Amino acid sequence: MKSRNGSDLWPFFEPRTVAVLGSLKDGMGHGYWALKNMLEFGYTGKLYPVNPAYSEVLGMKAYPSVNEIADAVDLALVITPPTTVPAIIKECAEKGVKAAVIVSENFADAGGEGAKLQQRLVDITIHSGIRIIGPNTVGVFNAANGFTTIPYPFGYDKVRSGGIAYCSQTGIVLPQCQPIGDRGYPISKMCDVGNKCDVNEVDLLNYLAADNETKVSAMHIEDVKNGGDFLNAARSFAERKPLIIFKSARSAAGARASASHTGSLMVDDVIYDNAIRQAGVIRAKTWQEFWDIPKVFAYNSPPSGNRVAIISHSGGAGVVAADLAVESGLALSRYTDATLRKLAKLSPRLAKNPIDLGPPLSVVDDPMSMQEEVIATVLDDTNVDCAAIILYVGTMAPASYIVQMFERLVKRISKPITVWFYGTKLSLIEDISRQLEGLGVPTYVDQETAVKSLGALVKYSESKKDI
Amino acid sequence: MKSRNGSDLWPFFEPRTVAVLGSLKDGMGHGYWALKNMLEFGYTGKLYPVNPAYSEVLGMKAYPSVNEIADAVDLALVITPPTTVPAIIKECAEKGVKAAVIVSENFADAGGEGAKLQQRLVDITIHSGIRIIGPNTVGVFNAANGFTTIPYPFGYDKVRSGGIAYCSQTGIVLPQCQPIGDRGYPISKMCDVGNKCDVNEVDLLNYLAADNETKVSAMHIEDVKNGGDFLNAARSFAERKPLIIFKSARSAAGARASASHTGSLMVDDVIYDNAIRQAGVIRAKTWQEFWDIPKVFAYNSPPSGNRVAIISHSGGAGVVAADLAVESGLALSRYTDATLRKLAKLSPRLAKNPIDLGPPLSVVDDPMSMQEEVIATVLDDTNVDCAAIILYVGTMAPASYIVQMFERLVKRISKPITVWFYGTKLSLIEDISRQLEGLGVPTYVDQETAVKSLGALVKYSESKKDI
Repeated sequence: MKSRNGSDLWPFFEPRTVAVLGSLKDGMGHGYWALKNMLEFGYTGKLYPVNPAYSEVLGMKAYPSVNEIADAVDLALVITPPTTVPAIIKECAEKGVKAAVIVSENFADAGGEGAKLQQRLVDITIHSGIRIIGPNTVGVFNAANGFTTIPYPFGYDKVRSGGIAYCSQTGIVLPQCQPIGDRGYPISKMCDVGNKCDVNEVDLLNYLAADNETKVSAMHIEDVKNGGDFLNAARSFAERKPLIIFKSARSAAGARASASHTGSLMVDDVIYDNAIRQAGVIRAKTWQEFWDIPKVFAYNSPPSGNRVAIISHSGGAGVVAADLAVESGLALSRYTDATLRKLAKLSPRLAKNPIDLGPPLSVVDDPMSMQEEVIATVLDDTNVDCAAIILYVGTMAPASYIVQMFERLVKRISKPITVWFYGTKLSLIEDISRQLEGLGVPTYVDQETAVKSLGALVKYSESKKDI
Repeated sequence: MKSRNGSDLWPFFEPRTVAVLGSLKDGMGHGYWALKNMLEFGYTGKLYPVNPAYSEVLGMKAYPSVNEIADAVDLALVITPPTTVPAIIKECAEKGVKAAVIVSENFADAGGEGAKLQQRLVDITIHSGIRIIGPNTVGVFNAANGFTTIPYPFGYDKVRSGGIAYCSQTGIVLPQCQPIGDRGYPISKMCDVGNKCDVNEVDLLNYLAADNETKVSAMHIEDVKNGGDFLNAARSFAERKPLIIFKSARSAAGARASASHTGSLMVDDVIYDNAIRQAGVIRAKTWQEFWDIPKVFAYNSPPSGNRVAIISHSGGAGVVAADLAVESGLALSRYTDATLRKLAKLSPRLAKNPIDLGPPLSVVDDPMSMQEEVIATVLDDTNVDCAAIILYVGTMAPASYIVQMFERLVKRISKPITVWFYGTKLSLIEDISRQLEGLGVPTYVDQETAVKSLGALVKYSESKKDI
């Protein structure tokens, strides 16, 4: 049995030398695209294309086999027909290659002969030191060093490097399928474990728990082979860093579908529920929560308590936020008398929580300055631990004013906040959201996740105080 | 007491003559913007700007008072300081104006003197025939005739005319705050009831139930003054057309916030839950569900049963869809033997539900043609009542191919489907989504609502069969 402490996973994310085995056909081959992606994202390790049909690709010499590479190889990326894979992995293991990502499909995911092929891979990992991610995976993405095994074009070539590790059991979560560039998620590492013939979510949790670049992790799982190990790893991770889990294959129909695309069988769903409750894990109930709850941890420091201020351009959205806050375990702040006096002086209607900025702003000459004073006053209140801010952006409140306000506010704000923008132009909302995140202020696609994320932040912080 | 059958609400949505009372300052005044919006959206009724300080605005003659208008006036739009409003409404009532939308704030929403001012409006409506929407509202929007009372710039000037009526108790739901243009919601009518000094959700439900342009309605509510009337109106509406309700002010904190921005007091939340369960109403739990569940009704005919096929480019997303389907009351279709044989002939891995298109498409020369054959085969299956389709769009599957495929498919598809696109470019996803909706195929921002909407469609259709 392999050690599951994750210490030997570094070659997957920080290899110094990489062999790429697959089609090198220009603009078409999976090997070609994997190499091209590494180059585009700035990976600077040594690359060894391997394919006997090519002598050169992307300006690099191609090798007929892994054995022909004189250098030691940290990682082999294998994207060849499934029947060829066991022999390739055996050759890699014999050469001392530390790790392999097997992208090829039609192993346990296809059942029958594929399952037998996968068993041969398992046998090799048991009798050698090589670690395997996959098969049936797109592998890894490391935002810090630009290393990736993904053999498909992304359509963009920049991501924001940051503290969130996203992991999954399916390729859809990785950046060739997601608007990671458009949405500006601050990424540390990403990984699709695929069929998990060797490396699984337990290894990943242990590796990422010790990874200095990872501040928080979100993990999509369908099945877990050993519930006890997973529970321990999740608990241990959550003691150090926040862990968000999105569990699919919850239903029998979902589990059957999972078995037929990953070759895995479900254990009782109760295991996950227990794991999640007992281990201090945060449960994401939707894809949007999976993507966006981690941002509250990546951008904010822990709050002192659960008292939230809600400041909204819309009274109606303020009411929705109050509901969501209560449902997320937050309490609405009662401002100090000093704050109430200061707010009432600006407008009698402001001295409350949620604050509906709409009516007061509509009758003053300089609404932007009143808005800034309200937000600053509330965030300075000692009875306020965090804030959910809801702002319209558009013709009536130009993005430039709002961004300038936050540039000033972030110099004095140390309390956690989340911002949800609404307005008539989607592109404008996305644009100002990225600008605010550039200032360190997390923004949200939907109001529900904006408020729930604050609740998750508070709950996690409180669980740390109990220890 | 007014009749609540809604028959006298037509002047709010289809006035022949409109007086606009408010600031006419060029590019700034609320009266100016209301008039400009009516012109931009193509309203062709007679417009009477009213403001003694102006003789002309936007090429139209301005009148010093409503009494100076010789013509009969169907609707008065009032955006003047609150203390001036009761006298204006009295004058309107005496002139025989049929309806007034009062945008002005600081009535019951501000409490104290404001509440007394509002009572004076209530008194006028009781003793005259005039109907009032508001105060504290942006009023109405009618996509069919371009009429709107909204006194703010939208930042766009086109909406898609269609079958969905969106109503709310807050302005955030109306098109000056929402990406109605970008998202292409097919709108019939929209209305913000504001403080509800007269017209309330019961009137609106009764009016919209009889409105030929409205096929389905989504309603945001915070409070209801008479739970019994509301329950009856909701039940009666739902017997004729689908009704989706998004209820806020669910929590005590939310209810307090609601009271302070709309001047309403909450009755027991249980009333709504009962209303929703007993009256056959569909409950939206998030803003996204409020906006997007109605689309499944606007674009699709009722399904014959609850058997869903799931067809996905991503195995992982297919599993999530299977969970969501089961949780939404759908059953996964068991295809006929003929379908299974046909699918297996294309690829042995395709003969199942959910169908994971990914692996088979990756190994054929013409993936687009295989994909189309799979979707057509499944939709032709007599054991399939509806389908949730999940497609990647981007470099590896260009939008043009997908749109062309649906152009052909819609000629033979009569079964309800929803489509969720994923990919790396948000703008591309929005763009192809609008193109598909142009073909009559509803698309979704998130996978959860795409599947839940099918569940809502099936549940509503089944409730009709029971009657």
